[in-house]
Amino acid sequence: MKKIKRIIEDLLKEKKYFEIKKELDKLNAVEISDVINLFKLPELVIMIFRLLKKDKAADVFSYLDSEHQEMIIHASTDVETREIFDELYFDDIVDIIEEMPSDIVKKILKNTDRKDRHLINQLLKYPDNSAGSIMTTEYVDFQKNMTVQEAIGQLKKTGKDKENIYTCYVTDKKGKLEGVLSLKELISKKDSAVIEDIMNTNFVSVNTHDDQEKVADLFKKYDFIVMPVVDHENRLLGIITVDDVLDVVDQEVTEDFHKMAGITSPTDDSYLKTSIFTMAKQRIGWLAVLMISDTISGNIIQGYEKVLAKSIILTAFIPMLMSSGGNVGSQSSTVVIRSLALGEISPKDAFKVIKKEFSIGIMVSIVLALLNFIRLITLEKTNFVIAFVVSLTLVFTVIVSKLVGALLPLGAKIVKADPAVMATPLITTISDAVTLVIYFNFAAMFLKL
Amino acid sequence: MKKIKRIIEDLLKEKKYFEIKKELDKLNAVEISDVINLFKLPELVIMIFRLLKKDKAADVFSYLDSEHQEMIIHASTDVETREIFDELYFDDIVDIIEEMPSDIVKKILKNTDRKDRHLINQLLKYPDNSAGSIMTTEYVDFQKNMTVQEAIGQLKKTGKDKENIYTCYVTDKKGKLEGVLSLKELISKKDSAVIEDIMNTNFVSVNTHDDQEKVADLFKKYDFIVMPVVDHENRLLGIITVDDVLDVVDQEVTEDFHKMAGITSPTDDSYLKTSIFTMAKQRIGWLAVLMISDTISGNIIQGYEKVLAKSIILTAFIPMLMSSGGNVGSQSSTVVIRSLALGEISPKDAFKVIKKEFSIGIMVSIVLALLNFIRLITLEKTNFVIAFVVSLTLVFTVIVSKLVGALLPLGAKIVKADPAVMATPLITTISDAVTLVIYFNFAAMFLKL
Repeated sequence: MKKIKRIIEDLLKEKKYFEIKKELDKLNAVEISDVINLFKLPELVIMIFRLLKKDKAADVFSYLDSEHQEMIIHASTDVETREIFDELYFDDIVDIIEEMPSDIVKKILKNTDRKDRHLINQLLKYPDNSAGSIMTTEYVDFQKNMTVQEAIGQLKKTGKDKENIYTCYVTDKKGKLEGVLSLKELISKKDSAVIEDIMNTNFVSVNTHDDQEKVADLFKKYDFIVMPVVDHENRLLGIITVDDVLDVVDQEVTEDFHKMAGITSPTDDSYLKTSIFTMAKQRIGWLAVLMISDTISGNIIQGYEKVLAKSIILTAFIPMLMSSGGNVGSQSSTVVIRSLALGEISPKDAFKVIKKEFSIGIMVSIVLALLNFIRLITLEKTNFVIAFVVSLTLVFTVIVSKLVGALLPLGAKIVKADPAVMATPLITTISDAVTLVIYFNFAAMFLKL
Repeated sequence: MKKIKRIIEDLLKEKKYFEIKKELDKLNAVEISDVINLFKLPELVIMIFRLLKKDKAADVFSYLDSEHQEMIIHASTDVETREIFDELYFDDIVDIIEEMPSDIVKKILKNTDRKDRHLINQLLKYPDNSAGSIMTTEYVDFQKNMTVQEAIGQLKKTGKDKENIYTCYVTDKKGKLEGVLSLKELISKKDSAVIEDIMNTNFVSVNTHDDQEKVADLFKKYDFIVMPVVDHENRLLGIITVDDVLDVVDQEVTEDFHKMAGITSPTDDSYLKTSIFTMAKQRIGWLAVLMISDTISGNIIQGYEKVLAKSIILTAFIPMLMSSGGNVGSQSSTVVIRSLALGEISPKDAFKVIKKEFSIGIMVSIVLALLNFIRLITLEKTNFVIAFVVSLTLVFTVIVSKLVGALLPLGAKIVKADPAVMATPLITTISDAVTLVIYFNFAAMFLKL
C-alpha cells in the first residue's frame, strides 16, 4: 500500500489525475481505503476521494477510518454528502454517526431523506451491545402468495440496495415474520411454485433487546450468514449479517481478556484512540482493591514474624512459592473461563471439572516438588529439612491453587456473575494467603521453630 | 431440549414411533442433534436417528458430537453409511474423519465413491490450521463465455449440492481462477449478458498453505462470506465459508488465552475430552521454567538477607509489592497483546505505546502509592520511614512493570515471535526481580541499614 501511496503522491505533484484514476481502478474498495487512510493532509484525501467513480466512492467511504470519514464529510457539499449516504447501508450509517462529532452528524442527517432519517434514529436508540444496535433494515421480504417467478423478479428489481438477499423473509400484512427462504432454495424451485409452500416456517430469530453475545452464539451454533431480528410481537424489524457478528466476537473476546487482567469497563475504542486518562481509570480500580487485599498476605507474614526471625532464609522461598501458586491458579482459571465461554462446560459439570483439576494438580505438584527438591539439595546446597518444607508446601500450594482457580469462575457462573471477573488477580490473592499459611505451619512443625 | 428428550423417551417406551417422527419434524437439524446428543444408549440413538427423513438425516448427523456420530456409523449398514456421506459436504466429512478411530474411518472411506475418496484424501493432507485444511471443494464455477441465463440454469441444476452458491467463480480450461461473481450481481443482470463482461477480476484469494489466522483476518477486513483458495499456479481448489472462519476465530482466541496463561500446545479438543495426562503435560513446562526462574527473586532476597534481618517487618510488604507489579504488568501486556492481535497497533507504534503506558504508569502509580501511604500511616500505624520506602518502591515498581508488560510483547512481535507467549508469567518474574532490587535499595538508603 505504501508503494501505491508514493506513486499517487508523485502523480498528484504532477497533477496527472487521469493516471491516478487508472491506478485506483486497479484496486478494490478496501485497498483504496487503505491507501487513503495513509494520507494525512485533508486536501489530498479529498482530492483522491473525488477522483473515485461514484458507485465505488460510497463503498470506499464505509471502509475509511473515522478520522478520514470526517475530513471528507467536512469538505463535501450537501449534494456530495447525499450521494455518499444514499449508497450506504443503514447499519454502516449508524456506525459512522456514532463516531462523528455533532456538527458532522447534523450534516449527515440533513442530507438523508425523512424516511431514512427516521429509521436511522430508530437504530440509534437501541442499547449498546443489543441485537437492535447491530442490525440493518435492508432485507428482502416477500408475501406468501407470491410465486417463485414473482419473487425472483422482485429481487432483480430491488436486490441491489439490500445488504443481504441470500436469505429472504416472508411477512404478513402486519409485518409479522411468517417464514424464511434462502435464495439457494428459491432458485432451485419451479417458477410457478408458491412461496407459502416452499418457505421454511421453523426459523430462529432474535429480539431487538437480546444481547449481541447471544446472537454470536446462535450464529456459531447454526452456521448462519444472516439472522432475522423481531420485536415482542414477532414483527420483522431488521437482519443481522455475519460480518457484523465477526466484529461482535472480537469485541466480546477483548472484553474477556481485559476483565481477566483486572481492567474494568473496556471501551469499544482501539488502543491508540483511548485516552490515557480513561485507560488509567480502567486499570486503577482492581489494582487498588488487590493492593489492599494483599494486606492479608502481609498480615500473615507479620503473624509469623517470630518463625521468620529464627530462620531468615525462609523468606527467600516466599516469591517462588507464591508465584507458583499464582501461575497454577491462573492456568486453571483461564482454561475454565474459556471453556465456559465456548459452552464446552457448564456449572453442572462442576464435579467433573474439580475431579479433573484435582488429578492434574496431583501430577503437576509432585513433578514440580521433586524437581524443586533435587535442585535445592544439589545446586543450592540448601539445608535438607528446609528443602523438604519448601517442596512439601509446593505440593499443597499447587493443588489448592488449581482448585481455587477452577472453582471461582464456576461459582461465579452459578450465581450468574461474570466468570472472567473472578479472574487471575483475585485468585492470586487467595492462593498467596493459603500458600503462606501452609508454608509457615510446615516450617514451624518440621523446623521446630 | 431436556423436555423433548423426556417426551421422546416416553414415546420410545410405548413404541409410538410415528409420534416421535411428528415431534422431530417440529425441530430443525441443530435442535434434533441437540436432543440426540442427550441420549447415552447407542440403541436409542440409532433408533431415533433411523426415524429421521433421509434428507434431514445427513444434516443432523453433521451437528452431532463425535461420540454419537461414531455410534451411528458403527451400527449403520454400508448402504446407510453411503446415504449419509453422500449428502455431507467434503469439509464436514474431513472434520468427522479426523475425529474417528481407524475402523470407522475405513468404513466411511469404503462407502464413498472413488472420486470423492480421492478428494477427501487430498483435503486430509493439508497441514493443520492451513487454508487447505478448512476449505471445501463444493463451489460453483462458470466459464466466461456463458450468458447470465446459462449460468442461472446451471445453478438451478447443480446448486443444491454446493455449500455456497452466493459467490460463483469463473475458471479457464486449466482451472485457473479468472473472476468472481456474486449471485446478487448475477441476478440483477440481463439474461443475455455474458459472464466475462460482468465478472469481477479484482478479487482476493488465499493459498492452500496460508495460515488460517490470515484467512480470518481477510474475512474481517473485507466482510466476506466466502473466499476462494488457489494453488501456486492460481488454480481454484476450493472455497472457505464464513461459518468455518467463526470456528477458526474461536480456536485462535483459545490458543492466545492458553499461551498467556503459560499453557503450551493447546489441543483442539474441548475441556472435557482432553485427557488429564495431556493437560498436565501442557501445563507443567512453563510452571517448571518459572519456578526455576523465580530463584532469581529468591537469590535477591538472600543477597539482602542482612538488610532484612535488621528490619524483619520489611518482609511483610514483599507480597503486596510483588503482586502489584505483577498485576500492573499483566494489565499492560494483555492490552498490548490483544491490540496486536486485532491489528490496532503494530511494532511501528512502539514509541506511541511506550509513551502511553509510561503516562498511565505515572498516574496509576501515584494514586496507588498515596493510597498505600495513607493506609499504612493511619490504619496499620506503620513506621513513617518504612511507609515512605514501601510507597516509593510502589511508584517505581508500577512504572517499570507497565513498561516491561508493554515492551515484551512488542519485542516479540518485532523478532517475529508470538507476543502471547511473552505473557503474564514471564513478565511477573521480571517485574518481581526488579521490584525486590528497588525495594531493598530504598530500604538500605532511607533506613540506613
